[in-house]
Amino acid sequence: MAERLVVIGGDAAGMSAASQARRRRGPEDLRIVAFEKGAHASYSACGIPYLVGGEVTDVESLVSRRPEVFRDEMDIDLRLRSEVVEIDLDRRAVAVRDGRGGDPSWEPFDQLVVATGAVPGRPDLPGADAEGVYGVQTLDDGVALLRALEDEPRRAVVVGGGYIGLEMAEALVRRGLEVSLVDAAEQPMSTLDPDMGALVADALRDLGVEVHLGERMEGFEESGGRVTAVRTANLTLPADLVVLGLGTRPNSALAEAAGIPVGETSGIVTDRRMRTPVEGVWAAGDCVETFHRVSRRPVAIALGTHANKQGRVTGINIGGGHASFPGVVGTAVSKICEYEVARTGLTTAAAEQAGFEPVGGIVESTTRAGYYPGARKMKIKTIADRGTGRLLGAQIVGQEGAAKRIDALAVAIWNEMTVEEMSGLDLSYAPPFAPVWDPVLIAARKAAEHIDRLDGKA
Amino acid sequence: MAERLVVIGGDAAGMSAASQARRRRGPEDLRIVAFEKGAHASYSACGIPYLVGGEVTDVESLVSRRPEVFRDEMDIDLRLRSEVVEIDLDRRAVAVRDGRGGDPSWEPFDQLVVATGAVPGRPDLPGADAEGVYGVQTLDDGVALLRALEDEPRRAVVVGGGYIGLEMAEALVRRGLEVSLVDAAEQPMSTLDPDMGALVADALRDLGVEVHLGERMEGFEESGGRVTAVRTANLTLPADLVVLGLGTRPNSALAEAAGIPVGETSGIVTDRRMRTPVEGVWAAGDCVETFHRVSRRPVAIALGTHANKQGRVTGINIGGGHASFPGVVGTAVSKICEYEVARTGLTTAAAEQAGFEPVGGIVESTTRAGYYPGARKMKIKTIADRGTGRLLGAQIVGQEGAAKRIDALAVAIWNEMTVEEMSGLDLSYAPPFAPVWDPVLIAARKAAEHIDRLDGKA
Repeated sequence: MAERLVVIGGDAAGMSAASQARRRRGPEDLRIVAFEKGAHASYSACGIPYLVGGEVTDVESLVSRRPEVFRDEMDIDLRLRSEVVEIDLDRRAVAVRDGRGGDPSWEPFDQLVVATGAVPGRPDLPGADAEGVYGVQTLDDGVALLRALEDEPRRAVVVGGGYIGLEMAEALVRRGLEVSLVDAAEQPMSTLDPDMGALVADALRDLGVEVHLGERMEGFEESGGRVTAVRTANLTLPADLVVLGLGTRPNSALAEAAGIPVGETSGIVTDRRMRTPVEGVWAAGDCVETFHRVSRRPVAIALGTHANKQGRVTGINIGGGHASFPGVVGTAVSKICEYEVARTGLTTAAAEQAGFEPVGGIVESTTRAGYYPGARKMKIKTIADRGTGRLLGAQIVGQEGAAKRIDALAVAIWNEMTVEEMSGLDLSYAPPFAPVWDPVLIAARKAAEHIDRLDGKA
Repeated sequence: MAERLVVIGGDAAGMSAASQARRRRGPEDLRIVAFEKGAHASYSACGIPYLVGGEVTDVESLVSRRPEVFRDEMDIDLRLRSEVVEIDLDRRAVAVRDGRGGDPSWEPFDQLVVATGAVPGRPDLPGADAEGVYGVQTLDDGVALLRALEDEPRRAVVVGGGYIGLEMAEALVRRGLEVSLVDAAEQPMSTLDPDMGALVADALRDLGVEVHLGERMEGFEESGGRVTAVRTANLTLPADLVVLGLGTRPNSALAEAAGIPVGETSGIVTDRRMRTPVEGVWAAGDCVETFHRVSRRPVAIALGTHANKQGRVTGINIGGGHASFPGVVGTAVSKICEYEVARTGLTTAAAEQAGFEPVGGIVESTTRAGYYPGARKMKIKTIADRGTGRLLGAQIVGQEGAAKRIDALAVAIWNEMTVEEMSGLDLSYAPPFAPVWDPVLIAARKAAEHIDRLDGKA
């Protein structure tokens, strides 16, 4: 009899796992059932802001594989609008509600993949459930928000200045709304150092966004069940539309209730092969915690690229292969209109917390040779360990052509390079692509001046 | 008495050396004289094609520091139009012609920096000296070519399909000329594998360039001293203007005549601190050979970014500091209109020659998420060592946003990463910047399938 694989969650991690397992084991050997509680599966959640902003006009284009492809071509029994409400590890079965009411039905498994994603931080504040307050977690959220735009709202407030908040601010600016952004911190983008976050705040203001920082949320005003304003400790911001971009946390409640161990980040604990400590139970994607290669600590980072990789690793292993997810260095990138923001590694604060002695600073350079048309200013901050010279983190704020440079820095961090060695790296140079000293090299060189053992020598 | 430093060559390497030495030693301690045979110093030779093409309209913008800045602010005695014609190591002096005729004068030195750059490959063919045949080595060449465009030439032939040839083809297309490109090889860009070079040929044709490959040059036809056509074994290509882009070789004749050792590449031999084997004599820039970190062999690569780094290292060392040039991995990038080309590491042929067993292939992906506006196709070829899985080389042909990805690959090669490990790298992802699997990750993953020891497992 075929082994039974059940996948909970039909997005990046879950469907990657299912696909990889299927590639290696045919239907006679492995039966695969995937449950997705929403109406869409296998879509790019990261694309939602661009759907709302109008850069992407077709919802379907965010779907990488249509449900029937899984069913008809891959023999994966994908069931939409089917929510797993319980995992019973003793019975080796999950309870599923299919949305048609009635009792949940039980589906048995031999192998289980938990890929339940993340849940948005939704503030426990008066009015948070009012009509007109939107999250942007699922494609269904995106579609709902898109529909709300048809009523031609005039004023939008984005709560939270992280990636999603920023991208949603761009989307709403593009749609012609008056946009305010509220963040409790003194600068947006808490994944950056405050001095780099301040550059992002400047960029937002430059785009016409009203930026309110250091504002503690108090609640939402409503009228007839509809949101009318966002209230903070000091302000009342009128709003026809509110978008919550308060970050996410791993959606691990279902797993935890079943007794699957959850870590300090509230992400499900796995080894590098994506096995939970429970025999035959795997987890992947935004619901797990992973290993940060610089801090050496567990982190939970909700990001499609990790979810895809982890899902792939899971599926290969279930399929009888051998694959590992090697952890992360915290690389991320975002665009807000013409501005680009990127980061990798640890912030200064996180580096201190991890026991390093971070030094470094910001350098300004250009994306191309200064004389070449289209050269744009960019700033790079590098953070190095004073004692060893090792690069710990890097952050970029700039315009076209700036942000993707973070990858070279991420690879350097991955390999535990020192900033001194990095300043000799053979990076590509031609006037349309870089000044003769690429900004990455300048940043490394400047950081090297702060390193103890170099003694100012190189 | 102050030590006397003489620098031969007033471009990137020479003036970086002079500047760094000055930063660390004042004029009372070190007297610096720099001789430049041309009319310009400290300019971006890499910018010349863009001057000819019209993207850069001001010759002066290519000059990074004006001569008077060196003289007035840095106490560096920079002498333009002054050609060093002999180095006498016994007398510790150089003979200089200042262009006003008469015998050369002798300038003594304690320390000498040879930064004589490269000489263009100029074919020893009938008619090669005809009027209308241009090199693009110096800023003076660029200015001459710019002047030639004022006569409104109609047909141009570019001889040589390397970086300079390609960039000059773009420049002349932009100026509205009918452009033909001739190369003796079967594909342009001999620094790429032929299958990637073929993509460049396609791009050139797409831009309206008439591409003639596998055509051995026989000479130039002329009339009244002016070039009228380029003649190959099979073709006669009418030309009002000919641009030679036949690559360069180290300009090491002066050093060699003085007894300074020159290597198999014809580049001057130095150690990593840029010292020649002759006490007190340094060399830097296009005239030296350097160390290729993958082939472990000497190479001569004429590139402004290496020249700057080597000059800086030289100047720091002369200034009493300690710096090293760590070698290269052969990274390069170029743009031809909307096409971008980049490479790093070894080609398949060079990898074989260096004793590796290269495997790999080409993958196609996009620069952004497929659904995001402006996503462009790009192809990456990765070359890995079959036995160890180590990445040996990578090549990219694509459009906007493609080429700078070579840097992540260059850093991976620098650190001797395997393609298997690379496929787990934490590279930046967001729809405006990459598909959920960055093309670099896909390329690494595909290459990993060819590696022996993985046995198809990951």
